[in-house]
Amino acid sequence: MSEDFGRFTLPFCSFVVPGETHPRVGVGVDTDVLDLTKAAEVVVPEQAELFATGTLDAFFAAGYEAWESVRHALTEWLGDTVPVEGQVHEHVVEHHLVPADSVELRMPFAVADYVDFYASEQHATHLGQIMRPNEEPLKPNWKHLPVGYHGRAGTVIASGTPIVRPNGQRRTPEGEIVFGPTAKLDIETELGYVVGSGSEQGTPVDLADFDRHVFGLCLLNDWSARDIQGWEATPLGPFLGKSFATSISPWIIPLAALSEARIHAPERTVPLLPYLDDADAEPWGLDISLEVSFNGEVVSRPPYAGMYWTPAQMLAHMTVNGASLRTGDLYGSGTISGAERQQYGSLVELSHNGQQPFTLGDGSSRTFLEDGDTVTITATAPGPDSETLYLGSVEGTIRASR
Amino acid sequence: MSEDFGRFTLPFCSFVVPGETHPRVGVGVDTDVLDLTKAAEVVVPEQAELFATGTLDAFFAAGYEAWESVRHALTEWLGDTVPVEGQVHEHVVEHHLVPADSVELRMPFAVADYVDFYASEQHATHLGQIMRPNEEPLKPNWKHLPVGYHGRAGTVIASGTPIVRPNGQRRTPEGEIVFGPTAKLDIETELGYVVGSGSEQGTPVDLADFDRHVFGLCLLNDWSARDIQGWEATPLGPFLGKSFATSISPWIIPLAALSEARIHAPERTVPLLPYLDDADAEPWGLDISLEVSFNGEVVSRPPYAGMYWTPAQMLAHMTVNGASLRTGDLYGSGTISGAERQQYGSLVELSHNGQQPFTLGDGSSRTFLEDGDTVTITATAPGPDSETLYLGSVEGTIRASR
Repeated sequence: MSEDFGRFTLPFCSFVVPGETHPRVGVGVDTDVLDLTKAAEVVVPEQAELFATGTLDAFFAAGYEAWESVRHALTEWLGDTVPVEGQVHEHVVEHHLVPADSVELRMPFAVADYVDFYASEQHATHLGQIMRPNEEPLKPNWKHLPVGYHGRAGTVIASGTPIVRPNGQRRTPEGEIVFGPTAKLDIETELGYVVGSGSEQGTPVDLADFDRHVFGLCLLNDWSARDIQGWEATPLGPFLGKSFATSISPWIIPLAALSEARIHAPERTVPLLPYLDDADAEPWGLDISLEVSFNGEVVSRPPYAGMYWTPAQMLAHMTVNGASLRTGDLYGSGTISGAERQQYGSLVELSHNGQQPFTLGDGSSRTFLEDGDTVTITATAPGPDSETLYLGSVEGTIRASR
Repeated sequence: MSEDFGRFTLPFCSFVVPGETHPRVGVGVDTDVLDLTKAAEVVVPEQAELFATGTLDAFFAAGYEAWESVRHALTEWLGDTVPVEGQVHEHVVEHHLVPADSVELRMPFAVADYVDFYASEQHATHLGQIMRPNEEPLKPNWKHLPVGYHGRAGTVIASGTPIVRPNGQRRTPEGEIVFGPTAKLDIETELGYVVGSGSEQGTPVDLADFDRHVFGLCLLNDWSARDIQGWEATPLGPFLGKSFATSISPWIIPLAALSEARIHAPERTVPLLPYLDDADAEPWGLDISLEVSFNGEVVSRPPYAGMYWTPAQMLAHMTVNGASLRTGDLYGSGTISGAERQQYGSLVELSHNGQQPFTLGDGSSRTFLEDGDTVTITATAPGPDSETLYLGSVEGTIRASR
């Protein structure tokens, strides 16, 4: 599949040229990748060493001014068709472009800590209705703070890596404790936010400083084994039901590319404490449209625009107790779901926890994932001049358990 | 305080000599530290490069054979009083000893993922009785699997680092949502296990391979804000109530030093699935005695010997879904508590969640931690020849919230 990022988004990746072993930092330009590890000496000479290792860690750690300055330089070089000292800048850069579908994309950065939130009111409501039909679907804390928990950083993997169906313990409806492959393998359609600049232990990060710390976002699929999770998660939360794999898209989209997608979060129905109150702050809701495909067939279109908690609020909450941030911290939005069935971001919602199978175009039906299934999540957002920006994809294919 | 490790334990640390900046790997020998970064060329020439960076990461990653071979060499050099080629080995090594209380101990390794378990039946029972007095204290899953969850690796800190009282959201007994410094700052008296050799994603680690992957253990205090935790933790578990700080002792005790401390775990009252059943396996219960001091006064002596789940079972469980291990993964035992009041490993137990203050030697009383309080946890274990091995200490002093 050829992915077209245009010339405004300028997403970053880590790639390997066939036949080589050392990774390079790449920038998405139309359907090409700009080899920034090679081009940096010319395009961003003062920041060239940030791209030398071929992964994004050093660039992320360099901070907001470096991100801005590199983006500015890339924009200039890519759009500059007037000769300077006898050279057309655009032509110099084009010399370092290679077709993106000819290279291998890698994990773009080292994940430090991984946190997953639960920020969609629709998703949390559906889960409550399905799992606890006789209770209020939202827990009392849900509208007062973005509920979240830590996941396993070591099993965050790049898009395309196969997902081995996990084994685990679960309790049958009859109350028997059994062991084996999960029978409820699910997806969670999410966005993941990547921290560039860290913070000191003891010092919270205010809402207003969100874009000084977070470089950008990726697409994220937090694979989940609902039966394992259901049995293990009382009282300390999900563990092995999640920790086997989390896939991310290999392209990291800079926040700076999302200027036209920024919107206010939905109206709050309960008052927020000052550290979370964004009524007078810069809006960090995002009008991003996601699409979930099952073996190539679109089964859902979750809208990110309706998310109750913004990424700026999640960051402020995550650090309000003084927890420090590190370069490479990754935090997920939680499953993105709209109110309508065709907007659900997980199969536990789409199949009502397996009670209502849904039919695919080939005539087969699904409740949860079967071995061989390929799930692809893509996303788009509004860009300048009424353009639509493509934000990448995250994909995984299920392999039988070992 | 001068810590005496004797000459059998041979714990590892990372230290800095006053006036220098680069860390060195050290080995505890009596009350001294052996500068292994300097001595390695002589003592373990083939492994010398493992100690060059001054932290333990490379040595841990080198694996079981390297750990064994280095321990063997150290034991020989330290105990060898017969001249070889004109040199008394012991004298050569002693040339590289410096008093441990003259150096600064650092975080000994980079924490990859941090997991905390809940493996003491007594602690889990007490918590259940305190928090849910009208229910069965243990949840139905508790004796079928070691309950655990991921914590924040980025806020694991070395003993001695001050603990800033965290701010956060909590709900008052009247149902009001308020923000401010935690009023229920607590300790959790634990052991932490450190993974040396990683494992591949998709491949579980059997009970029998525990000591091929885990290098050793440290003392761990998982500071907890009970009021923040109580409000946030439904339904996804603890988050900010824990993530502000976790302290570990700077000395890592090799499993190989605990040969005399190994015991069978307590009798199981429910049958275990095969991957957790250690009835016919090598025993990995440990007869370790802990001591908790409050401003120098012993307030509790938690016994590790009674823990229901062993570290080998925790590792087998943590990986049974195919989750990979990485060098530097750290997992805590959970609070260690005995049945008696003077064996409780947390203040929520000692004060019955603040309802029953306990009195200190200076006449003051406590429910939870006050600013200025210093908590010190130490541990000992049986060694060869009926000796008692000292296993180090972890300490922290509470600072007022910012």
